[in-house]
Amino acid sequence: MSARIIAIDAMGGDFGPRSIVQASIACLRSTPSLHLTLVGHASLLEELVGSQLAADRARLCIVAASEVIGMDERPSQVLRGKPDASMRVALELVRDGKAQACVSAGNTGALMALSRQVLKTLPGIDRPAMVAAIPTQAGCCQLLDLGANVDCSAEHLYQFAVMGSEAARALGIARPRVALLNVGTEDIKGNQQVKQAAALLQGASGLNYVGFIEGDGVYRGEADVVVCDGFVGNVLLKSSEGLATLIGTRIQSLFRTGVLARMAGLVALPLLRRLHTELAPARHNGASLLGLQGIVIKSHGSASAEGFQSAIHRAFIEIQEDLPRRLQGRLGDLLR
Amino acid sequence: MSARIIAIDAMGGDFGPRSIVQASIACLRSTPSLHLTLVGHASLLEELVGSQLAADRARLCIVAASEVIGMDERPSQVLRGKPDASMRVALELVRDGKAQACVSAGNTGALMALSRQVLKTLPGIDRPAMVAAIPTQAGCCQLLDLGANVDCSAEHLYQFAVMGSEAARALGIARPRVALLNVGTEDIKGNQQVKQAAALLQGASGLNYVGFIEGDGVYRGEADVVVCDGFVGNVLLKSSEGLATLIGTRIQSLFRTGVLARMAGLVALPLLRRLHTELAPARHNGASLLGLQGIVIKSHGSASAEGFQSAIHRAFIEIQEDLPRRLQGRLGDLLR
Repeated sequence: MSARIIAIDAMGGDFGPRSIVQASIACLRSTPSLHLTLVGHASLLEELVGSQLAADRARLCIVAASEVIGMDERPSQVLRGKPDASMRVALELVRDGKAQACVSAGNTGALMALSRQVLKTLPGIDRPAMVAAIPTQAGCCQLLDLGANVDCSAEHLYQFAVMGSEAARALGIARPRVALLNVGTEDIKGNQQVKQAAALLQGASGLNYVGFIEGDGVYRGEADVVVCDGFVGNVLLKSSEGLATLIGTRIQSLFRTGVLARMAGLVALPLLRRLHTELAPARHNGASLLGLQGIVIKSHGSASAEGFQSAIHRAFIEIQEDLPRRLQGRLGDLLR
Repeated sequence: MSARIIAIDAMGGDFGPRSIVQASIACLRSTPSLHLTLVGHASLLEELVGSQLAADRARLCIVAASEVIGMDERPSQVLRGKPDASMRVALELVRDGKAQACVSAGNTGALMALSRQVLKTLPGIDRPAMVAAIPTQAGCCQLLDLGANVDCSAEHLYQFAVMGSEAARALGIARPRVALLNVGTEDIKGNQQVKQAAALLQGASGLNYVGFIEGDGVYRGEADVVVCDGFVGNVLLKSSEGLATLIGTRIQSLFRTGVLARMAGLVALPLLRRLHTELAPARHNGASLLGLQGIVIKSHGSASAEGFQSAIHRAFIEIQEDLPRRLQGRLGDLLR
């Protein structure tokens, strides 16, 4: 099999290139068949990479890009200006076949807009959806859309279901249970879009559609793929992150409430900190932009080096599984 | 001041009348000016109440109702049938001035439908909204709507903001910060309804509107009142409950992973269990139906006796503050 090269937008995210380079090198060490191309300020990246072992260095290359897209720049500005932005150059490497995926922790709106402009969407897809894995009692589930599409028709939800199902299969689930997020599980519940999407999904062959799911059912692990519009998905993801942080804060103060609690805390807090990382899904996992003619993974802007590694790992799996080609095939079969 | 009588639908909820009677008696003991009317199967309720102290008994009366509404009955059936259902009889006590509020842990859709039929909505309100307090880093915030209205216009969101603000004031917050839930905080973010509602709220006098809030901002405590459509609110509330339960499960298994962890668990788990109750908002707190000509509180179907007490407590405060009258005044001032 040919080399798996991932283009890394080394300048995006809140923590800057140092943490991204660190995550990149850790991934090279753990995955021998992986090659990475860091895109950004060449001299800075050379310096950060500088002291690495020759063995790691052999699979790491640097491509210069002189501009950086700020976290608060508007997508419309980004599309017109900054032809040499690290994010754009990384996407162009994918377009030109010099890399098989792009990973960025930069501005989400800019990444979405540039991905559409540079890579184009698959036939039949208006706008890519964002999907990420969130933890559940049963393991994890793929939740989409996470905010790219705030107004969705029933057809959009149907496309998300098809793409989410294929993404879950690529991640190793043989027959993913696909559910529509709703305010109840009875047929009469929900808004028009959700009811119409349910009708479309009930008639779809080759999809393991299991019906409606409620918010608590998501975390109980009642489905492998949960479909909703981007408004709802974004609120679910971010509020979960907020609640996980709130619980973490409260637990820390619990262990300061007395001598016994402090002693217990010495044992418990390190365990709980690991749990918190795992359960703050947005921060931990990469989100995949589905529906493009290429693989693009968005890492959380404030992801730790470990979170960025998860994003690279997701890109690697999607390359192995050739997800865009599989999606194109499935969409061709299923969509009118 | 006149007596504060709360009519309790003693037959609703997953745990049956025993747990409801227990919660009712606990509330009578903690609140000397409270009177309760239990509505349901009279002989059963007499038996459950039977051995209580005469002092408690003096403020507790039983009203017979021969029928019970099932948790899965459709609102349309409930409206036509069961004239002697405990839920209906409890609401009629409020309508007839024999009680100042109704609390039920029964079927939410039925309670909403019967409340509208029996009590009627306030002028200008199409459909009541459900609001509940959720915990935040700063204390708590009132979140609405929680599922009564899945399709909302900008005007509906505006009404929710007005009612939520007044409810928060009744609960003791002098100048509640009101925010609109959105997928970002910039003006360009969101769907049409949210953008239009923002324009209405920016022009409203007497409301402390603070702009958009994201899911994580809700739990950070950035607002006292968070407004969204019922679909989004329901998903936020239920997914939070699911995540809190998931975290609880994971924590319990952490404390089984070794001798030291088990010892730490002896101290930590009781503390964490209390925290879990506090942070599973739907189970713990009562939700208020706002916009009716009367006070109706919905307790979670699987609420513990403690959760049901919270619901009675919320009803008691809303009576003290005469919330429906205050809402009517505010809506008259603010709505066209």
